[in-house]
Amino acid sequence: MQREKPHNHWHYKPNGEIPPGERLPEGLRRIALGVEYCGARLHGFQKQKSADATVQAYLEKALSTIAAEPVTLVCAGRTDAGVHATNQVIHFDTGAVRPTRAWVEGVNTKLPDAVRVHWAREVSPQFHARFSARARSYRYLIHSAPTRSAQAAAEVTWTQHPLDLEAMRAGARYLVGRHDFTSFRASQCQAKSPVRDITRLDIARVGQLIVLEISANAFLHHMVRNITGVLMAVGRGERAPQWVGEVLAARDRTAGGVTAPPFGLYLVNVQYPAEFGLPAHEPGPLLVPLPLGGLPV
Amino acid sequence: MQREKPHNHWHYKPNGEIPPGERLPEGLRRIALGVEYCGARLHGFQKQKSADATVQAYLEKALSTIAAEPVTLVCAGRTDAGVHATNQVIHFDTGAVRPTRAWVEGVNTKLPDAVRVHWAREVSPQFHARFSARARSYRYLIHSAPTRSAQAAAEVTWTQHPLDLEAMRAGARYLVGRHDFTSFRASQCQAKSPVRDITRLDIARVGQLIVLEISANAFLHHMVRNITGVLMAVGRGERAPQWVGEVLAARDRTAGGVTAPPFGLYLVNVQYPAEFGLPAHEPGPLLVPLPLGGLPV
Repeated sequence: MQREKPHNHWHYKPNGEIPPGERLPEGLRRIALGVEYCGARLHGFQKQKSADATVQAYLEKALSTIAAEPVTLVCAGRTDAGVHATNQVIHFDTGAVRPTRAWVEGVNTKLPDAVRVHWAREVSPQFHARFSARARSYRYLIHSAPTRSAQAAAEVTWTQHPLDLEAMRAGARYLVGRHDFTSFRASQCQAKSPVRDITRLDIARVGQLIVLEISANAFLHHMVRNITGVLMAVGRGERAPQWVGEVLAARDRTAGGVTAPPFGLYLVNVQYPAEFGLPAHEPGPLLVPLPLGGLPV
Repeated sequence: MQREKPHNHWHYKPNGEIPPGERLPEGLRRIALGVEYCGARLHGFQKQKSADATVQAYLEKALSTIAAEPVTLVCAGRTDAGVHATNQVIHFDTGAVRPTRAWVEGVNTKLPDAVRVHWAREVSPQFHARFSARARSYRYLIHSAPTRSAQAAAEVTWTQHPLDLEAMRAGARYLVGRHDFTSFRASQCQAKSPVRDITRLDIARVGQLIVLEISANAFLHHMVRNITGVLMAVGRGERAPQWVGEVLAARDRTAGGVTAPPFGLYLVNVQYPAEFGLPAHEPGPLLVPLPLGGLPV
């Protein structure tokens, strides 16, 4: 006679969501990593058939070497080609037992300079890099100056136009809150709902840089770059701040402006419930000018 | 009968010093440029027989194209391979008559991305990029963190050691002022005198970066990198601050520490008498971290 299926039965899928109270299969553990990368010479995060130089391909190869078994991973947010991250979060399940430093220093010896692991943590089975994330923060760096900089051309987006910060801030206010962001999503976006909740959109000038910092529960495909493109049109004076509200209300991608280039975009933080105990990570050297002769002391 | 040589007779040497009151030969003018470069992929400033990828070679080729005649230049300070500049100053003499924007935008179209001209100015014949300079300022960026950054590996010097800022500042105080810097000059240094006057040596922490800013009337070969090497040994706690005074007093290069790598070093300013009317130039995006969620507004 066939045994009745237990009420809490679940099928283990590697890296998948684990129901509350359930464990990983015997001998497996779940590891989370904090990863930084310079997107300039990479073909984006996600593994592709045609390109080897993706963050995922580099990481899975390095992790598999250290684990001495095949490793596949899940990330908090798949970034496009050219986009950077200072604290992308990934997780994977493994039977390998390694000290934390093997998942950091050991893995780093197997990675190109453009990809670095900064921390590793064994996490509870209920942690999931993508589905446990409560908020993501991106930063967009615009270098506004008459001539392009010789420093870090692929790490900032250059514009020769002066930008009106107050106008950009006025436009940004239309976007903060819970809205249907259809006008700011790429046509190839696969998310089920176009509704997202922007909790913060700050804009500051630091020397020649304009820095946008934006946090939301999650982002649609190209959403930060499309928002930046619209706000830059406002900053250049081509559009009034209220146009941002009109674009939002149109719920039509063709109502919006151009997609800003990937080079100025950084995934800087992913926020998880405190119970998972992930470490905080300082964003490290980003490109912000110090005033000459005016060091903060 | 031979005419007597006039008292103020001088022989024109291209780009040379012009005595006060004298003019350039008819039809020539002297142009000064502000130049930024990322040293990571360059073989230093000075033209070499064996390497094409020098700042001077790129600039002279681009300037010669725009001038439609051979151009040779003089710079304020010859930087080593790997060293960056945000505002190197050069000058050249030319018979070509061009609008200022040709010497900026036009020349930039002929340069690699790693070298940019930011300003051009016709200057008096008495201006000399090297000999008119009254002071130079350098900045050295140290990234102090447990793991190396994936961003801008060639634009900062990474150390995994924590650095004691107060100890470094205490050591730096021995160096400020007019001293014999023999202990901090490279063996191949060609300067006649080892005496230099350091007017300022500030050290600040900005996020994970330690920033040294140093100004002097002029610098000996490797002087900033040798000073940084000594101060880093103090910062790591390997040496006491007073050791810096002992190294200075020894007047012996072998008494000092290691030469810090070129990657963290930037020539950020060259100061000239105000009468020459050179424009100020903001240093542009250098690598300094912004605190997360704490944009200055």
